[in-house]
Amino acid sequence: MIGCRHILQAVMAALVLMLAVGTHPLLAAERAIRGTGDLGIIIERAAGRVQIIETSARTRIGEVAGLGDLSHATAVFSRDGRYAFVFGRDGGLSKIDLLTARLEKRIVQAGNSVGGAISQDGALIAVANYEPGGIKVFAADTLEQVADIPAEDGGERSKVVGLEDAPDARFVFSLYDAGEIWIADLTNPAVPAISRFKNIGQQPYDGLVTPDGRFYIAGLFGEDGVALLDLWQPEPEVKRILDGYGRGEEPLPVYKMPHLEGWAQAGGLLFLPAVGRYEVLVVDALTWQEIARIPTHGQPVFAVARPDGRHVWVNFAHPRNETVQIIDVKALAVIHTFQPGKAVMHIEFTPRGEQVWISVRDEDRVDVYDSRTFTRITSIAAEKPSGIFLSARAHRIGF
Amino acid sequence: MIGCRHILQAVMAALVLMLAVGTHPLLAAERAIRGTGDLGIIIERAAGRVQIIETSARTRIGEVAGLGDLSHATAVFSRDGRYAFVFGRDGGLSKIDLLTARLEKRIVQAGNSVGGAISQDGALIAVANYEPGGIKVFAADTLEQVADIPAEDGGERSKVVGLEDAPDARFVFSLYDAGEIWIADLTNPAVPAISRFKNIGQQPYDGLVTPDGRFYIAGLFGEDGVALLDLWQPEPEVKRILDGYGRGEEPLPVYKMPHLEGWAQAGGLLFLPAVGRYEVLVVDALTWQEIARIPTHGQPVFAVARPDGRHVWVNFAHPRNETVQIIDVKALAVIHTFQPGKAVMHIEFTPRGEQVWISVRDEDRVDVYDSRTFTRITSIAAEKPSGIFLSARAHRIGF
Repeated sequence: MIGCRHILQAVMAALVLMLAVGTHPLLAAERAIRGTGDLGIIIERAAGRVQIIETSARTRIGEVAGLGDLSHATAVFSRDGRYAFVFGRDGGLSKIDLLTARLEKRIVQAGNSVGGAISQDGALIAVANYEPGGIKVFAADTLEQVADIPAEDGGERSKVVGLEDAPDARFVFSLYDAGEIWIADLTNPAVPAISRFKNIGQQPYDGLVTPDGRFYIAGLFGEDGVALLDLWQPEPEVKRILDGYGRGEEPLPVYKMPHLEGWAQAGGLLFLPAVGRYEVLVVDALTWQEIARIPTHGQPVFAVARPDGRHVWVNFAHPRNETVQIIDVKALAVIHTFQPGKAVMHIEFTPRGEQVWISVRDEDRVDVYDSRTFTRITSIAAEKPSGIFLSARAHRIGF
Repeated sequence: MIGCRHILQAVMAALVLMLAVGTHPLLAAERAIRGTGDLGIIIERAAGRVQIIETSARTRIGEVAGLGDLSHATAVFSRDGRYAFVFGRDGGLSKIDLLTARLEKRIVQAGNSVGGAISQDGALIAVANYEPGGIKVFAADTLEQVADIPAEDGGERSKVVGLEDAPDARFVFSLYDAGEIWIADLTNPAVPAISRFKNIGQQPYDGLVTPDGRFYIAGLFGEDGVALLDLWQPEPEVKRILDGYGRGEEPLPVYKMPHLEGWAQAGGLLFLPAVGRYEVLVVDALTWQEIARIPTHGQPVFAVARPDGRHVWVNFAHPRNETVQIIDVKALAVIHTFQPGKAVMHIEFTPRGEQVWISVRDEDRVDVYDSRTFTRITSIAAEKPSGIFLSARAHRIGF
């Protein structure tokens, strides 16, 4: 009978072991079996952390810490929507698994950097660096470095800004100090083919690629106007457009330079935050002529189009940053003004536009609005939230 | 010593049990932990089956059978990218889990149907039915019916075609027999709000919503021309455009009506397969005027824009359906012609456009091409493949 008891005890021990080894990971795995199309991250800047959220039930599902200095942080997503690549101000590049809420890998690839991009095929991650000035390119799967492109002109290295992906394995970026735009073709990452465009204007400070991937646009800090490059031309040339766009002859105090990546394209029009003025500029995206100026509550920072182009939502620079305004694209006028709270930092639409997520930094909240009724659906607690990035960006050009 | 052997045997048996119960499901679950942004399905029409594929390594990862009559089948995707909803010709609506390759649920909701749509928020699936004529609406999570909208006009029921989603919880569709367009607002699914537009022209046979969600367009079978509805107008009116579009006064034999949903928008232009002619028409998307006709190899069926709008890929009706042509949007001319094989049925780009998947029915193959070099990267065996649908459609309006 004692033998039997020993056997039973052994079996029980094995069963306990089985539960510990087999079932718990199984439950964890079951939890991680889910689609990734409705996932996203919220940057908690001061904490060096991101929250992982989902937009179907609108909840927080995880967090990942230890990401370093996340001021001005941005993110791109792997082509399968599973991984976020977060670019920190301190040169950190972090790869996060959204399904398991794990930090897969983190490297510090430069001393000071300002955003990045993922190649059209999802294989390459490029980072724009201030120090040392240039871009570095990494394999998306391993974060091993595959290319280093110093932004060197006449022996001087330049800060790189406005790094964007473009079709056909290209990255486009601007050299702040040299006043140049470069196109790097990484068809063969071991031998990047660089095209340089000089004398584009003084101090390009940010850039964007239009949603169709055709045009690269660089805003100028050192003078008025904007540099435009048509990537469809076999021999592209930089044109100067919007001579009135900038700080003007008697500059107003600029509290915050607007983000160009947020420039909204809707109904054949581009909506640009003016620099230093309480205005959003409207530009015809075919002729590149300014066709209207819409008065706004403050200096606009982001002007973000609802994905169907019906409305453009705008936030503002300090000290008028408690407010969001909604522009009607057909009427070219503000149709709604409201106060989400202190320090509205970022605006992100779900990909088909029914919801919009707004980070309200000094209220430690991210609010979710119904884009049709302009009413708040829910709020999610977050510590000093800044950028909000949804995984559907994986499927868009120039994001 | 015999006691010890028994104990050891019991422990071994428990370990075997642990492997069988604990580890196998764990492995299966681990397999299913993956992003869904690079998934898709291939319709195997004759077999009543779909293949599940992924576009990162470009492989087949599963299949789901038992889907009934899949001639003319189309699909939409849940907002998280995990589930495909397949619309069969026999009125079948099947919900497929792409991660586990399981048929979650299948209902036969009508006698004869022709496609469907998913609402902007992903909560509702609508199906267009010939018999009985109308649309039925189902909850995306359970496939329980939530609304039944008979397409009745003066006591007669009409076949429904061209069912599309539009922003703000709307579905738009056309009544083939009655010559009408209806908008159903399902903000409250229990009480759909219907707007009817009469006398839009004879026998609308298909419809599309432009990528920005603003315009609904219905092609006419019974006369030349196209009906256009501006969904941004508070009181929309149907306009007639493109009077020359159709079969003309002396109709050519039409081997296959072109698919309107495939109409390509690129660079402010719309590319339309002509009806019965060896031409693709180019229309200015602002003025709705025809600005060019591009001669092609045969009667075009699908004209599909590369997501960046640089090229439009076109396939053709029987008996000239072995060929694909590529139109350059800047030159408005065919720049490349090639023969994938017998019976090219469908063309689907990856969301950022670096790959294009082409089904070649009578060769039992789906070919994957590099959209930049026009070279074939790989092929996947499939039994009489027709439609190819990638999960990134979940994030687009009017798809």
